[in-house]
Amino acid sequence: MKVKYPNPTLHNEKFTTIKTHGMLFENALNVTNEYYLVHNKAIIYKKPTPIQVVKVDYPQRSKAKIVEAYYKIPSTTDYNGIYRGKYIDYEAKETVNLSFSFTHIFPHQIDHLKKVNEHGGIAFVIIYFKKVDEVIIIDIVTFNKLYEDSKKGAVKSISLATAREKGKIVPKGYTPPFDYLKAVDELFF
Amino acid sequence: MKVKYPNPTLHNEKFTTIKTHGMLFENALNVTNEYYLVHNKAIIYKKPTPIQVVKVDYPQRSKAKIVEAYYKIPSTTDYNGIYRGKYIDYEAKETVNLSFSFTHIFPHQIDHLKKVNEHGGIAFVIIYFKKVDEVIIIDIVTFNKLYEDSKKGAVKSISLATAREKGKIVPKGYTPPFDYLKAVDELFF
Repeated sequence: MKVKYPNPTLHNEKFTTIKTHGMLFENALNVTNEYYLVHNKAIIYKKPTPIQVVKVDYPQRSKAKIVEAYYKIPSTTDYNGIYRGKYIDYEAKETVNLSFSFTHIFPHQIDHLKKVNEHGGIAFVIIYFKKVDEVIIIDIVTFNKLYEDSKKGAVKSISLATAREKGKIVPKGYTPPFDYLKAVDELFF
Repeated sequence: MKVKYPNPTLHNEKFTTIKTHGMLFENALNVTNEYYLVHNKAIIYKKPTPIQVVKVDYPQRSKAKIVEAYYKIPSTTDYNGIYRGKYIDYEAKETVNLSFSFTHIFPHQIDHLKKVNEHGGIAFVIIYFKKVDEVIIIDIVTFNKLYEDSKKGAVKSISLATAREKGKIVPKGYTPPFDYLKAVDELFF
Protein backbone atom coordinates (compact mmCIF):
# COMPACT_ATOMS: atom_id res chain seq x y z
CA MET A 1 0.00 0.00 0.00
CA LYS A 2 1.07 3.56 -0.66
CA VAL A 3 1.96 5.90 2.18
CA LYS A 4 -0.87 8.28 2.95
CA TYR A 5 -0.79 11.34 5.18
CA PRO A 6 -0.53 11.18 8.18
CA ASN A 7 2.36 8.78 8.50
CA PRO A 8 4.15 8.64 11.85
CA THR A 9 7.57 8.11 10.39
CA LEU A 10 7.75 9.90 7.11
CA HIS A 11 5.53 12.78 6.24
CA ASN A 12 4.03 14.29 9.31
CA GLU A 13 5.87 17.57 9.76
CA LYS A 14 5.48 17.33 13.52
CA PHE A 15 7.83 14.37 13.52
CA THR A 16 10.47 15.66 11.17
CA THR A 17 12.95 16.21 13.96
CA ILE A 18 12.29 12.80 15.38
CA LYS A 19 12.86 11.23 12.01
CA THR A 20 16.24 12.90 11.55
CA HIS A 21 17.37 11.89 14.99
CA GLY A 22 15.90 8.48 14.37
CA MET A 23 18.43 8.00 11.61
CA LEU A 24 21.27 8.50 14.04
CA PHE A 25 19.75 6.02 16.49
CA GLU A 26 19.21 3.67 13.57
CA ASN A 27 22.88 4.01 12.62
CA ALA A 28 23.93 3.21 16.18
CA LEU A 29 21.73 0.12 16.11
CA ASN A 30 23.16 -0.94 12.76
CA VAL A 31 26.70 -0.57 14.08
CA THR A 32 25.69 -2.58 17.15
CA ASN A 33 24.23 -5.35 14.98
CA GLU A 34 27.35 -5.40 12.85
CA TYR A 35 29.38 -5.82 16.03
CA TYR A 36 27.15 -8.74 17.07
CA LEU A 37 27.54 -10.28 13.61
CA VAL A 38 31.33 -9.97 13.53
CA HIS A 39 31.56 -11.43 17.04
CA ASN A 40 29.17 -14.20 16.02
CA LYS A 41 26.81 -13.31 18.87
CA ALA A 42 23.67 -12.81 16.80
CA ILE A 43 22.53 -12.41 13.19
CA ILE A 44 20.26 -9.39 13.14
CA TYR A 45 19.63 -7.12 10.16
CA LYS A 46 17.55 -4.07 9.51
CA LYS A 47 15.02 -4.78 6.80
CA PRO A 48 15.26 -2.56 3.74
CA THR A 49 12.73 0.28 3.56
CA PRO A 50 9.86 -0.94 1.40
CA ILE A 51 9.56 1.07 -1.80
CA GLN A 52 6.94 0.82 -4.53
CA VAL A 53 8.78 1.12 -7.83
CA VAL A 54 6.63 2.66 -10.56
CA LYS A 55 9.07 3.48 -13.36
CA VAL A 56 12.56 2.29 -14.24
CA ASP A 57 14.83 3.69 -16.93
CA TYR A 58 17.88 2.04 -18.44
CA PRO A 59 20.20 4.92 -19.37
CA GLN A 60 23.06 2.42 -19.54
CA ARG A 61 22.47 -1.21 -20.28
CA SER A 62 24.29 -2.20 -17.13
CA LYS A 63 22.34 -0.24 -14.57
CA ALA A 64 18.65 0.19 -13.95
CA LYS A 65 17.68 3.68 -12.78
CA ILE A 66 14.48 4.01 -10.81
CA VAL A 67 12.87 7.32 -11.77
CA GLU A 68 9.52 7.05 -10.03
CA ALA A 69 8.93 5.31 -6.73
CA TYR A 70 7.16 5.84 -3.43
CA TYR A 71 7.71 4.83 0.16
CA LYS A 72 5.36 2.15 1.43
CA ILE A 73 4.22 1.46 4.97
CA PRO A 74 6.30 -1.43 6.34
CA SER A 75 4.33 -4.68 6.73
CA THR A 76 6.22 -5.61 9.85
CA THR A 77 9.03 -4.16 11.95
CA ASP A 78 12.50 -2.71 11.45
CA TYR A 79 14.74 -5.51 12.63
CA ASN A 80 14.76 -9.28 12.88
CA GLY A 81 17.12 -12.21 13.08
CA ILE A 82 18.37 -14.96 15.33
CA TYR A 83 19.86 -14.75 18.83
CA ARG A 84 20.78 -17.65 21.12
CA GLY A 85 18.91 -19.96 18.78
CA LYS A 86 15.72 -17.93 19.03
CA TYR A 87 13.91 -15.72 16.57
CA ILE A 88 14.24 -12.06 17.55
CA ASP A 89 12.10 -9.22 16.19
CA TYR A 90 11.81 -5.58 17.23
CA GLU A 91 10.77 -2.10 16.29
CA ALA A 92 13.14 0.81 17.02
CA LYS A 93 11.70 4.17 17.97
CA GLU A 94 13.07 7.49 19.12
CA THR A 95 11.52 10.47 20.83
CA VAL A 96 12.74 13.96 21.66
CA ASN A 97 10.11 14.18 24.40
CA LEU A 98 10.16 12.66 27.86
CA SER A 99 7.43 10.26 26.80
CA PHE A 100 6.78 7.96 23.86
CA SER A 101 3.48 8.59 22.08
CA PHE A 102 1.59 5.57 20.73
CA THR A 103 0.89 7.55 17.56
CA HIS A 104 4.52 6.78 16.61
CA ILE A 105 3.90 3.08 16.09
CA PHE A 106 1.47 1.37 13.72
CA PRO A 107 -1.13 -0.92 15.31
CA HIS A 108 -0.24 -3.65 12.77
CA GLN A 109 3.35 -3.52 14.01
CA ILE A 110 2.15 -4.16 17.58
CA ASP A 111 0.02 -7.04 16.28
CA HIS A 112 3.01 -8.46 14.43
CA LEU A 113 5.17 -8.38 17.57
CA LYS A 114 2.38 -9.98 19.62
CA LYS A 115 2.20 -12.81 17.10
CA VAL A 116 5.98 -13.29 17.21
CA ASN A 117 5.75 -13.60 20.98
CA GLU A 118 2.94 -16.17 20.69
CA HIS A 119 5.13 -18.20 18.33
CA GLY A 120 7.91 -18.30 20.91
CA GLY A 121 10.07 -15.52 19.53
CA ILE A 122 11.70 -12.60 21.33
CA ALA A 123 9.65 -9.49 20.58
CA PHE A 124 10.02 -5.96 21.90
CA VAL A 125 10.08 -2.25 21.20
CA ILE A 126 13.34 -0.41 21.76
CA ILE A 127 12.95 3.31 22.47
CA TYR A 128 15.60 5.99 22.49
CA PHE A 129 14.76 8.92 24.78
CA LYS A 130 17.03 11.47 23.22
CA LYS A 131 16.66 14.17 25.87
CA VAL A 132 18.17 11.93 28.54
CA ASP A 133 20.24 9.87 26.09
CA GLU A 134 18.68 6.66 27.36
CA VAL A 135 17.67 3.53 25.47
CA ILE A 136 14.99 1.29 26.97
CA ILE A 137 13.61 -2.06 25.84
CA ILE A 138 9.99 -2.90 26.60
CA ASP A 139 8.86 -6.45 25.85
CA ILE A 140 5.78 -6.63 23.63
CA VAL A 141 3.45 -8.08 26.28
CA THR A 142 4.16 -5.16 28.62
CA PHE A 143 4.12 -2.67 25.75
CA ASN A 144 0.78 -3.96 24.52
CA LYS A 145 -0.72 -3.76 28.01
CA LEU A 146 0.29 -0.09 28.20
CA TYR A 147 -1.11 0.42 24.70
CA GLU A 148 -4.45 -1.18 25.57
CA ASP A 149 -4.64 0.85 28.79
CA SER A 150 -4.01 4.02 26.78
CA LYS A 151 -7.12 3.33 24.71
CA LYS A 152 -9.27 3.43 27.83
CA GLY A 153 -7.46 6.21 29.68
CA ALA A 154 -6.33 9.75 29.05
CA VAL A 155 -2.62 8.95 28.81
CA LYS A 156 -1.70 8.24 25.19
CA SER A 157 1.98 7.68 25.72
CA ILE A 158 4.63 5.91 27.80
CA SER A 159 6.43 8.28 30.14
CA LEU A 160 10.15 7.90 30.70
CA ALA A 161 9.42 6.94 34.31
CA THR A 162 7.04 4.16 33.21
CA ALA A 163 9.50 2.96 30.57
CA ARG A 164 12.25 2.77 33.20
CA GLU A 165 9.96 0.93 35.58
CA LYS A 166 8.41 -1.54 33.12
CA GLY A 167 11.29 -1.92 30.70
CA LYS A 168 14.99 -2.60 30.82
CA ILE A 169 17.63 0.07 30.35
CA VAL A 170 20.23 -0.70 27.67
CA PRO A 171 23.85 -0.20 28.74
CA LYS A 172 25.70 2.37 26.62
CA GLY A 173 29.24 1.96 25.41
CA TYR A 174 31.58 2.64 22.56
CA THR A 175 31.66 -0.80 20.92
CA PRO A 176 28.89 -1.63 20.55
CA PRO A 177 27.13 1.74 20.98
CA PHE A 178 23.99 0.14 22.47
CA ASP A 179 24.60 -3.32 23.88
CA TYR A 180 20.89 -4.10 23.87
CA LEU A 181 21.31 -7.88 23.89
CA LYS A 182 22.40 -7.55 27.53
CA ALA A 183 18.94 -6.16 28.29
CA VAL A 184 17.42 -8.92 26.13
CA ASP A 185 19.30 -11.52 28.19
CA GLU A 186 17.79 -10.17 31.39
CA LEU A 187 14.28 -9.79 29.99
CA PHE A 188 13.92 -12.98 27.98
CA PHE A 189 16.37 -15.61 29.26
CA MET B 1 26.72 -1.05 -2.36
CA LYS B 2 25.43 -0.31 -5.83
CA VAL B 3 24.61 -3.12 -8.19
CA LYS B 4 27.37 -3.72 -10.68
CA TYR B 5 27.28 -5.85 -13.79
CA PRO B 6 27.14 -8.85 -13.73
CA ASN B 7 24.32 -9.35 -11.29
CA PRO B 8 22.69 -12.75 -11.26
CA THR B 9 19.22 -11.46 -10.53
CA LEU B 10 18.84 -8.10 -12.14
CA HIS B 11 20.92 -7.01 -15.05
CA ASN B 12 22.46 -9.96 -16.78
CA GLU B 13 20.54 -10.34 -19.97
CA LYS B 14 21.05 -14.08 -19.91
CA PHE B 15 18.86 -14.30 -16.83
CA THR B 16 16.11 -11.93 -17.89
CA THR B 17 13.70 -14.77 -18.51
CA ILE B 18 14.51 -16.38 -15.21
CA LYS B 19 13.89 -13.13 -13.43
CA THR B 20 10.46 -12.68 -14.98
CA HIS B 21 9.44 -16.21 -14.15
CA GLY B 22 11.00 -15.74 -10.75
CA MET B 23 8.39 -13.12 -10.02
CA LEU B 24 5.63 -15.67 -10.53
CA PHE B 25 7.35 -18.16 -8.24
CA GLU B 26 7.86 -15.33 -5.77
CA ASN B 27 4.15 -14.54 -5.91
CA ALA B 28 3.29 -18.17 -5.24
CA LEU B 29 5.61 -18.15 -2.24
CA ASN B 30 4.09 -14.91 -0.97
CA VAL B 31 0.60 -16.38 -1.26
CA THR B 32 1.82 -19.49 0.57
CA ASN B 33 3.31 -17.36 3.36
CA GLU B 34 0.11 -15.37 3.65
CA TYR B 35 -1.77 -18.66 4.00
CA TYR B 36 0.62 -19.72 6.77
CA LEU B 37 0.17 -16.36 8.49
CA VAL B 38 -3.64 -16.44 8.33
CA HIS B 39 -3.65 -20.01 9.65
CA ASN B 40 -1.18 -19.01 12.36
CA LYS B 41 1.26 -21.70 11.23
CA ALA B 42 4.28 -19.47 10.70
CA ILE B 43 5.25 -15.81 10.40
CA ILE B 44 7.38 -15.53 7.30
CA TYR B 45 7.78 -12.42 5.15
CA LYS B 46 9.70 -11.55 2.04
CA LYS B 47 12.14 -8.77 2.77
CA PRO B 48 11.67 -5.62 0.69
CA THR B 49 14.05 -5.22 -2.25
CA PRO B 50 16.90 -2.99 -1.06
CA ILE B 51 16.97 0.31 -2.93
CA GLN B 52 19.48 3.14 -2.67
CA VAL B 53 17.49 6.36 -2.74
CA VAL B 54 19.45 9.27 -4.24
CA LYS B 55 16.87 11.97 -4.84
CA VAL B 56 13.41 12.64 -3.45
CA ASP B 57 10.95 15.29 -4.63
CA TYR B 58 7.91 16.61 -2.78
CA PRO B 59 5.44 17.54 -5.51
CA GLN B 60 2.69 17.46 -2.89
CA ARG B 61 3.42 18.09 0.75
CA SER B 62 1.77 14.82 1.66
CA LYS B 63 3.72 12.43 -0.49
CA ALA B 64 7.43 11.99 -1.11
CA LYS B 65 8.28 11.02 -4.68
CA ILE B 66 11.55 9.20 -5.24
CA VAL B 67 12.97 10.39 -8.57
CA GLU B 68 16.40 8.78 -8.52
CA ALA B 69 17.19 5.45 -6.95
CA TYR B 70 19.08 2.24 -7.72
CA TYR B 71 18.72 -1.40 -6.84
CA LYS B 72 21.24 -2.68 -4.33
CA ILE B 73 22.56 -6.18 -3.84
CA PRO B 74 20.66 -7.78 -0.94
CA SER B 75 22.79 -8.22 2.21
CA THR B 76 21.07 -11.46 3.08
CA THR B 77 18.30 -13.61 1.65
CA ASP B 78 14.75 -13.20 0.38
CA TYR B 79 12.69 -14.60 3.23
CA ASN B 80 12.86 -15.01 6.97
CA GLY B 81 10.65 -15.44 9.98
CA ILE B 82 9.61 -17.87 12.69
CA TYR B 83 8.26 -21.41 12.38
CA ARG B 84 7.56 -23.87 15.21
CA GLY B 85 9.44 -21.54 17.55
CA LYS B 86 12.54 -21.57 15.36
CA TYR B 87 14.15 -18.93 13.19
CA ILE B 88 13.69 -19.76 9.50
CA ASP B 89 15.65 -18.20 6.64
CA TYR B 90 15.82 -19.08 2.97
CA GLU B 91 16.64 -17.94 -0.51
CA ALA B 92 14.20 -18.65 -3.34
CA LYS B 93 15.50 -19.38 -6.80
CA GLU B 94 14.05 -20.44 -10.10
CA THR B 95 15.52 -21.95 -13.21
CA VAL B 96 14.18 -22.68 -16.69
CA ASN B 97 16.91 -25.28 -17.13
CA LEU B 98 17.07 -28.81 -15.80
CA SER B 99 19.87 -27.73 -13.47
CA PHE B 100 20.50 -24.88 -11.06
CA SER B 101 23.68 -22.92 -11.76
CA PHE B 102 25.67 -21.63 -8.78
CA THR B 103 26.13 -18.34 -10.63
CA HIS B 104 22.50 -17.58 -9.65
CA ILE B 105 23.29 -17.20 -5.98
CA PHE B 106 25.68 -14.80 -4.25
CA PRO B 107 28.45 -16.38 -2.16
CA HIS B 108 27.57 -14.00 0.71
CA GLN B 109 24.03 -15.39 0.69
CA ILE B 110 25.41 -18.92 1.11
CA ASP B 111 27.61 -17.65 3.96
CA HIS B 112 24.61 -16.01 5.59
CA LEU B 113 22.59 -19.24 5.45
CA LYS B 114 25.54 -21.23 6.83
CA LYS B 115 25.73 -18.82 9.78
CA VAL B 116 21.99 -19.12 10.41
CA ASN B 117 22.39 -22.89 10.54
CA GLU B 118 25.30 -22.58 12.99
CA HIS B 119 23.11 -20.41 15.22
CA GLY B 120 20.44 -23.12 15.33
CA GLY B 121 18.10 -21.71 12.70
CA ILE B 122 16.42 -23.46 9.78
CA ALA B 123 18.30 -22.49 6.62
CA PHE B 124 17.82 -23.67 3.05
CA VAL B 125 17.56 -22.82 -0.61
CA ILE B 126 14.24 -23.43 -2.34
CA ILE B 127 14.49 -23.97 -6.09
CA TYR B 128 11.73 -23.99 -8.66
CA PHE B 129 12.54 -26.10 -11.72
CA LYS B 130 10.09 -24.52 -14.09
CA LYS B 131 10.45 -27.03 -16.92
CA VAL B 132 9.17 -29.87 -14.76
CA ASP B 133 7.07 -27.61 -12.48
CA GLU B 134 8.82 -28.96 -9.41
CA VAL B 135 9.91 -27.16 -6.24
CA ILE B 136 12.74 -28.64 -4.20
CA ILE B 137 14.22 -27.60 -0.87
CA ILE B 138 17.91 -28.23 -0.23
CA ASP B 139 19.18 -27.58 3.30
CA ILE B 140 22.16 -25.24 3.45
CA VAL B 141 24.66 -27.83 4.68
CA THR B 142 23.94 -30.07 1.69
CA PHE B 143 23.72 -27.10 -0.66
CA ASN B 144 27.06 -25.77 0.53
CA LYS B 145 28.71 -29.18 0.10
CA LEU B 146 27.54 -29.26 -3.52
CA TYR B 147 28.76 -25.68 -3.93
CA GLU B 148 32.21 -26.46 -2.52
CA ASP B 149 32.44 -29.59 -4.71
CA SER B 150 31.57 -27.48 -7.74
CA LYS B 151 34.61 -25.29 -7.11
CA LYS B 152 36.88 -28.31 -7.46
CA GLY B 153 35.03 -30.12 -10.23
CA ALA B 154 33.71 -29.38 -13.68
CA VAL B 155 30.04 -29.34 -12.71
CA LYS B 156 29.01 -25.80 -11.78
CA SER B 157 25.38 -26.53 -11.08
CA ILE B 158 22.91 -28.79 -9.31
CA SER B 159 21.10 -31.11 -11.69
CA LEU B 160 17.42 -31.85 -11.17
CA ALA B 161 18.35 -35.46 -10.42
CA THR B 162 20.81 -34.37 -7.70
CA ALA B 163 18.29 -31.91 -6.27
CA ARG B 164 15.67 -34.66 -6.09
CA GLU B 165 18.14 -37.03 -4.46
CA LYS B 166 19.70 -34.60 -1.96
CA GLY B 167 16.74 -32.34 -1.31
CA LYS B 168 13.07 -32.66 -0.49
CA ILE B 169 10.29 -32.18 -3.02
CA VAL B 170 7.63 -29.66 -2.02
CA PRO B 171 4.03 -30.84 -2.41
CA LYS B 172 1.98 -28.70 -4.79
CA GLY B 173 -1.59 -27.66 -4.20
CA TYR B 174 -4.07 -24.89 -4.64
CA THR B 175 -4.06 -23.41 -1.14
CA PRO B 176 -1.28 -22.97 -0.40
CA PRO B 177 0.35 -23.16 -3.86
CA PHE B 178 3.61 -24.59 -2.47
CA ASP B 179 3.22 -26.18 0.95
CA TYR B 180 6.95 -26.04 1.57
CA LEU B 181 6.71 -26.24 5.35
CA LYS B 182 5.77 -29.91 4.90
CA ALA B 183 9.18 -30.46 3.34
CA VAL B 184 10.74 -28.35 6.13
CA ASP B 185 9.07 -30.60 8.71
CA GLU B 186 10.65 -33.65 7.15
CA LEU B 187 14.07 -32.10 6.68
CA PHE B 188 14.50 -30.21 9.96
CA PHE B 189 12.23 -31.70 12.63
